Amino acid sequence: MLDAFDQKKDHILKEIGANSESHLDASPKGTIDIFCIPIINEINGNPNYVTTSSCSGRVSVFLEGIKHNEDTTAQIGAKGYEGRWVFVTHDPDELPLWYDNVKFIYQDQNYKELTPNTRYLLYKYEPLILHVKCRDTKLATALYTTAMNCGFRESGIGSNNVVAIRISIKLDVPFGYLEESLGSLVSFVTRDYLEVLTKLSDDRFKENFRKMNQLHQAIAALSLSSDGVNHLTSKQETREERRLRKMQLGLAKREEIRELKKRAKEAKEEVQ
Amino acid sequence: MLDAFDQKKDHILKEIGANSESHLDASPKGTIDIFCIPIINEINGNPNYVTTSSCSGRVSVFLEGIKHNEDTTAQIGAKGYEGRWVFVTHDPDELPLWYDNVKFIYQDQNYKELTPNTRYLLYKYEPLILHVKCRDTKLATALYTTAMNCGFRESGIGSNNVVAIRISIKLDVPFGYLEESLGSLVSFVTRDYLEVLTKLSDDRFKENFRKMNQLHQAIAALSLSSDGVNHLTSKQETREERRLRKMQLGLAKREEIRELKKRAKEAKEEVQ
Repeated sequence: MLDAFDQKKDHILKEIGANSESHLDASPKGTIDIFCIPIINEINGNPNYVTTSSCSGRVSVFLEGIKHNEDTTAQIGAKGYEGRWVFVTHDPDELPLWYDNVKFIYQDQNYKELTPNTRYLLYKYEPLILHVKCRDTKLATALYTTAMNCGFRESGIGSNNVVAIRISIKLDVPFGYLEESLGSLVSFVTRDYLEVLTKLSDDRFKENFRKMNQLHQAIAALSLSSDGVNHLTSKQETREERRLRKMQLGLAKREEIRELKKRAKEAKEEVQ
Repeated sequence: MLDAFDQKKDHILKEIGANSESHLDASPKGTIDIFCIPIINEINGNPNYVTTSSCSGRVSVFLEGIKHNEDTTAQIGAKGYEGRWVFVTHDPDELPLWYDNVKFIYQDQNYKELTPNTRYLLYKYEPLILHVKCRDTKLATALYTTAMNCGFRESGIGSNNVVAIRISIKLDVPFGYLEESLGSLVSFVTRDYLEVLTKLSDDRFKENFRKMNQLHQAIAALSLSSDGVNHLTSKQETREERRLRKMQLGLAKREEIRELKKRAKEAKEEVQ
């Protein structure tokens, strides 16, 4: 007979297992980001933890929705009322030259038409976020501490032993707006600046994956320890053993991601 | 005889009480931001809670420090090695035309001189953040739930019953860099765009103070309830009573902040 946590975990794992391009989940994108599948598998391989939501990190360009009154403050980044995604990617390979696929009017001064109802274009880089349900408070605290020690300094324990794992590698740039009379997207900044922003986003993707990798290893070590305390740093491992282990981990992960990308692409083609 | 929590709280309150322009605390700024003193007083007036750190929300412009190798990803926003604040304010009244007090070279295209070691200029809006130590886990959960219900969706419980109260009203804009050979600050964007960014920051200050006010009221209601559950919404208050109460709360707070600003100014003048 399974206890409440095991039942919940069992149910979630079945949903994750069934999830694919042709069988979408309830999230806006509908599938799990492939770049975080390795760390999700690591977490779910531990009998005390189960992931309840995840995003591997992404770049997005969003046009705010329609603002119905003058109280704009409550509507910053408004999702509703025709707010729409202009561009979204979780994959740094899809970043280069994204701006050339959008028809921007580049107008870098003299913004007379801005009003409290202006719908801004928001460019964002958002890093890895994971929500993990834990069997009990002690195990939640162990996971929280592991994440904090890896530099995920905005992590926290919420209700029902769910740990949110968060880091502050961000970009949040309102860089244009919708010119209503023409229905055009105006960029406040030059194409050259969008190129810089894209390059800086690529740096953040790299840093994000480096931190994800570090967290993955720390959680693997946490799973190995019997007492819920992370002994990664206190293990009697020589420098050479460590180098080899890290290299193998890195190679295995790259191989896994390559395979996942291939499968995702095939599944996408099947659907189309 | 005081228990451990009461001893800790007693100690913190003494430090807060002694803090002034002529008696700085250990934070970079050295004093508590006046805009969050009312909510801090509300929290510390509850025998089960004590604030351990706070920031009322701020705009900052930061020049990254020197990057010593090619691995820039680990050095995004580097604080050390001559990183320096170009502008910081917690007060929306100090925002207008801040950029005219900095000697920027406005150069909105053709960034040939960018390298992996480039030191970027980062413009940020960061909202209210509070850390609150709670007497026990149940009280920490009550405070966490109150904050989440007020829209502080990035809140979390950490170690030792410390609740971090966080909200995601942010701006994070790398908008220029240090041109090393001239020692000049180059802006990627026009002065007109910096004006837009400043206006959008002012909107975020307004939204931040609106949310802080909402949280203040919810914590006041939490203190009034005997069972640690927030009954603010279930109170039998007429619409007119509510309007009056809110108006009085707003007036009292504005008066309190005005008084605090006056005292801070006087203290500053005394020190100079």
